[in-house]
Amino acid sequence: MEEKKKISVEPYRGTRDFYPEDMAVRNYLFAIMSSAVERYGYVQYDAPLLEETALYKAKSGEEIVNDQTYSFLDRGGRDVTIRPEMTPSVARMVARRRKELTFPLRWYSIPNLFRYERPQRGRVREHWQLNVDLFGVDSVGADIEIVSVAHNIMREFGAKEENFQIKVNDRRITNFLLDTYLGVDKESSYKLSKLIDRKLKMKEEDFVGQAREELGEKINLFVEFLNNADINNLPEEFAENEGVLALKKLLKDLNEIGISNISYDPIIMRGFDYYTGMVFELFDTGPENNRALFGGGRYDDLVNLFDVEKVSGVGFGMGDVTIKDYLETYDLLPKDLKSNTDLYVCVYSSEYKKEADILAHYLRGKGVNVVVDLTDRKISAQIKTADKEKIPFIVCVGEEEATKRRYKLKDLSKHEEREMDQDEIVEVIRKNKKER
Amino acid sequence: MEEKKKISVEPYRGTRDFYPEDMAVRNYLFAIMSSAVERYGYVQYDAPLLEETALYKAKSGEEIVNDQTYSFLDRGGRDVTIRPEMTPSVARMVARRRKELTFPLRWYSIPNLFRYERPQRGRVREHWQLNVDLFGVDSVGADIEIVSVAHNIMREFGAKEENFQIKVNDRRITNFLLDTYLGVDKESSYKLSKLIDRKLKMKEEDFVGQAREELGEKINLFVEFLNNADINNLPEEFAENEGVLALKKLLKDLNEIGISNISYDPIIMRGFDYYTGMVFELFDTGPENNRALFGGGRYDDLVNLFDVEKVSGVGFGMGDVTIKDYLETYDLLPKDLKSNTDLYVCVYSSEYKKEADILAHYLRGKGVNVVVDLTDRKISAQIKTADKEKIPFIVCVGEEEATKRRYKLKDLSKHEEREMDQDEIVEVIRKNKKER
Repeated sequence: MEEKKKISVEPYRGTRDFYPEDMAVRNYLFAIMSSAVERYGYVQYDAPLLEETALYKAKSGEEIVNDQTYSFLDRGGRDVTIRPEMTPSVARMVARRRKELTFPLRWYSIPNLFRYERPQRGRVREHWQLNVDLFGVDSVGADIEIVSVAHNIMREFGAKEENFQIKVNDRRITNFLLDTYLGVDKESSYKLSKLIDRKLKMKEEDFVGQAREELGEKINLFVEFLNNADINNLPEEFAENEGVLALKKLLKDLNEIGISNISYDPIIMRGFDYYTGMVFELFDTGPENNRALFGGGRYDDLVNLFDVEKVSGVGFGMGDVTIKDYLETYDLLPKDLKSNTDLYVCVYSSEYKKEADILAHYLRGKGVNVVVDLTDRKISAQIKTADKEKIPFIVCVGEEEATKRRYKLKDLSKHEEREMDQDEIVEVIRKNKKER
Repeated sequence: MEEKKKISVEPYRGTRDFYPEDMAVRNYLFAIMSSAVERYGYVQYDAPLLEETALYKAKSGEEIVNDQTYSFLDRGGRDVTIRPEMTPSVARMVARRRKELTFPLRWYSIPNLFRYERPQRGRVREHWQLNVDLFGVDSVGADIEIVSVAHNIMREFGAKEENFQIKVNDRRITNFLLDTYLGVDKESSYKLSKLIDRKLKMKEEDFVGQAREELGEKINLFVEFLNNADINNLPEEFAENEGVLALKKLLKDLNEIGISNISYDPIIMRGFDYYTGMVFELFDTGPENNRALFGGGRYDDLVNLFDVEKVSGVGFGMGDVTIKDYLETYDLLPKDLKSNTDLYVCVYSSEYKKEADILAHYLRGKGVNVVVDLTDRKISAQIKTADKEKIPFIVCVGEEEATKRRYKLKDLSKHEEREMDQDEIVEVIRKNKKER
């Protein structure tokens, strides 16, 4: 019945324990994410952690399903996968109630996701990701809103405009480039689009070499196109391309509402096969850590995988690890996340425990968060605990307090102490809460 | 590359989609749980969703690891399990920082958990569970606090004392009953303790039949003991039992702080093998649905599974499905969970979209949550959407509003409309938020 071998205390490789101080940071990140997207009227949803594997096979992009998922057979023989991303689940949920839902939908979620990766900086096996999606609006107005929401989150985190940058492209431009302008076949087109997606991670000579295999003498046109970041200076064949027209409007409108750290970049692809229109990525502009922080785009065919009428979608995902790294780099994480506990009640000796409980019971009823010490330690040790846990107020209960029902409330941040009754305690703590 | 077969829109068997209206209920449940336990100074933590299977094999109780877990080999050949419960993870986390942590710890978490079960009412494969634990206090004071916290959550949900009941036992009493009072061997003792745990789900004759196989003629003593619910009326051999003494103090102290819907019941066991002292369950007292809602107990040896100095623990877990059923039964779920969105901006035609965006941008900067309509539909259809989503305020932007920068703010709950400028809109909405 019992196993005597001692077990490892480490979390499973690539996952993280969230001790209370880590959880306070995570809760801070999630609170900012939620309030930033709720400013635009987005409402929260959630999907199951497990989905049938067929859902991801359908459209996630082959690489992700084959090498990186946690897939297995359940005890009934069903092939299931721990979600590696949220978009297939949300598309399924929208399809499931296609007829009952009132469009447009503005939905968000902050799920945990799993990928089997070799753990390294910024790459973990379990991470959380804010997912923001707008369903049911085809026009570029929805793309503009989604990019604005992404921008607003960065602002709400305190990031300065010069410290991040949004790069935007449109799959319709890339498709036209490959299929029509360069005129390659479907297979080459797919290979080249994957190659563009990896461009930043490759040596230029390897990139050109691999592209030349598909393109032959057209390689120069291809490289020239990708090196041009001016949407108003494209080859004339692109003049009427829908992606180009939409991007021009997007850049103009965003500039008008004051978002200027955004530009066109033809190498922005986003990995997933399911994007059909605008795609964007948000970059850290720091010279030493020029990295993509997060991104998203338009996927008009995803809900269509299910047997329902088409619904267009546009959205993005923002991971907790990358954004936390970014905020640390720019010193934007709050230094001193206060305890949610308001008051620590110390007890001089066990005979006054009941008095302490009566006081705590009264205060809790008034909305004050109270710990009563249970340890029977010396008062100084009890006070030290309260201090270490950053609880802002302390009272000690002994014979005098039990008799007079008046208490010396210590304010640990101000090193002040003042005698008062229980209702004054409530008042002082409420006032302090408002100021925090 | 693409699969043409249409995929199912249903969630994986035994799991739930949380559409925004479901998520609002879940967020309500979690908010009450969090605030109720934070009243007692508990702080939030989290652990990874996946753990190595060895962690659960060690002490969870055989049945749970063998038949009900989602266990599989990862791509590196490690045996991993999606957590079926939180206690082993939290014990691992405490052991991992045994030396750095300042005890006592008051910790809580609201993780999702997985069990492979045949789905039925109240039994799903994925559920969420509030876990509340107090580590590092051996004395009955900690047991009393944990039971008080459980009681307080029910009160915060609005449950009346007569509609629920706490039943409490102590494993030290059961162990003494089996090992000393009845004097059976280890194997029989284990079988009988499992049998007591299943008693409520069995026919009395089956229970007695199976117990007789282990006990022979002592069966009457056993049945008699289990039928007695008066802690002051136990056989005299139990007079000095530590469990009995602790339970007497617990019942007395809880009565003194006003918790009277609690009583001793010798058949309360809680399934897990790891409990060592007090165990309790909270029951619905409704005659038609007399069911256990949740429970917990003391587990002083769990952290000891790891190679660290002993830490005592006491805690409980409360599932989301059962508590939601209970709250529905007693009509305690809030009827009308308001939208977090404050204002819906309707647009008379696309030429006024920019004006609408400027207004929305200003209001968002003042903390107002604003949706701007993107659909180009008729005004009446736009208003209908706002109404359906229970957004409390509406303004419509057209030529007059664009020129005068004054807006008719409609209050949908009061069917009122009043003209004002943007700062008055902020003021009215802030006032309304406070009143909600």
